[in-house]
Formats: sequence, C-alpha cells, structure tokens
Amino acid sequence: MAIRTARTAWNGTLMEGTGQVELTSSGAGTFYTTFQKRTAEKAEGATSAEELIAAAHSVCYSQQLSGEIAGAGGTPVALHTTADVSLVADPAGGLRINTIHITVRGEVEGLDAEGFVAAAEAAKRNCPVSKALTGTTITLDAALD
Amino acid sequence: MAIRTARTAWNGTLMEGTGQVELTSSGAGTFYTTFQKRTAEKAEGATSAEELIAAAHSVCYSQQLSGEIAGAGGTPVALHTTADVSLVADPAGGLRINTIHITVRGEVEGLDAEGFVAAAEAAKRNCPVSKALTGTTITLDAALD
Repeated sequence: MAIRTARTAWNGTLMEGTGQVELTSSGAGTFYTTFQKRTAEKAEGATSAEELIAAAHSVCYSQQLSGEIAGAGGTPVALHTTADVSLVADPAGGLRINTIHITVRGEVEGLDAEGFVAAAEAAKRNCPVSKALTGTTITLDAALD
Repeated sequence: MAIRTARTAWNGTLMEGTGQVELTSSGAGTFYTTFQKRTAEKAEGATSAEELIAAAHSVCYSQQLSGEIAGAGGTPVALHTTADVSLVADPAGGLRINTIHITVRGEVEGLDAEGFVAAAEAAKRNCPVSKALTGTTITLDAALD
C-alpha cells in the first residue's frame, strides 16, 4: 500500500562513532545521533531510536484515535499525544525497549469522558505501530481536556 | 536507563485533519503529517509513523552492527543502513506494518565478507528496535562496500 524509507550513515565504533539519520521519503530532515547520548539521562540535542519510536507511536496513535472517536459517533477537534519510551538493560543481554507510555488529552464533540476513554483504549490496541511493537509493554493515560 | 519523549498535536478528523510531530527530548525538529499523505504512494513532504519507524530502525541497527563488528574482532569504519517500512491493509481490520527491509553496506577493517554478514545477521536479531518490533517481519540484505 505505502512504503516509507529512512537511512542512517554511521561512522566509527559504537562508543566513539557518530551518525546522521535521514527522513528520506519526506525529506523532512537529517539528525545527529550518538550511542553515548542515546543512553545518557538527557538527549542533549541528539535524536535516538527511542525518540523516533516515540514520534512514530504518538502520530500513529493520534490518527487511530481520531478514527476511533468518529467510529463511536464523536468528532475529534484536537488531540495531544505524548509517548515516553524507556530503554533498559535486557536480562537476556544488550538493551531492550521496555515500556511505551502514552498520555493523551482530547478535545472532542459528542463523546463523554467514558466514551473517550473507550476510544483511547481501542486506539492503543488497533494503531499499526502498537500492533508492530508487540515486544514492548504499552500503557495509557487518557482523559478529555 | 534512558527515557525519550515525542509528542503529536493532531487537529481534526482522520481524513481531513493535520498533525505536528515533535522530537521533544532532542528538540531536533517538528514535522507536518497527514493520514492522506501517510497512505499515498509518495510522502510529498509529510513524515509518517512508517518513516519514523524506518528512521528508528536504521539508527538502532547501525549502532548494534558497529558493536557486533567489534565483538567479532573487526573495526567498523562506515555503515550505510536503509530501512524500508511497508504499511498494508490488515486482514484482521485496519492497517498494519507488514515488513521492514534493512539494506546495509559496510566499510570494515579486519572482517571478511562472511564475517560481516554474520555480524549483520546478529545485529538484526539483537538491536533493541528489532526486539520491540516482533509484530513485523524483518528482512536483511547485507554486504561489504
């Protein structure tokens, strides 16, 4: 149906190397990344796999929720979705993406708080990124604005 | 260990609405997105969940491969990784991310072609994004430059 492409150019070793990650299909940008900044407490200007997964999930979730709200008889006006992605040591070795926490606040016409939360839970199950990320635990905090 | 955050602000319905997705932790950028452009043949300047998943996978894979090369006794000089992510109709309903195809070319010291391909296969298994995306099929084309 649709194929989307991105590229990374990486130079050097894991600990000392640097990378440039490019949003190729859209041409929207190219961003600096290092492994040291990926695993540091703060990103300090560098993007990372985890931040990009958070971006992918927040946009996919938002679109799915707009569809679920309409399916439940409401009208989506404005949705604000935050995704927090945690990278931890993997007991099996290396690192793993452990949890993704979604926080969503919505301005919606024609749905009450209960209806909105039900739509938000459906979006968590049905968004294509959620269905792809089955190796993680996804949690949700949803409320009307 | 590390938490990274991104946000999407979405306005309107699925088919007519527009979104802004922000790389929050790094501050690297904010990008325009729509559902129409997500599912069109060409991205036409709009990012999408699939492009952002491709970016996350290409950078995670590149870093993991630099580590696997060192673990096999080589030295990574330059790695070029492309990720192509396909979105298709889901037989179970809605859409799904079906396959992620990774193409990698490497300039490496101290590993022959066979050793590089073995490291590339290990990186496909072990990178945290691969381990998270267990709901997809990941394929790999790896060769020395």
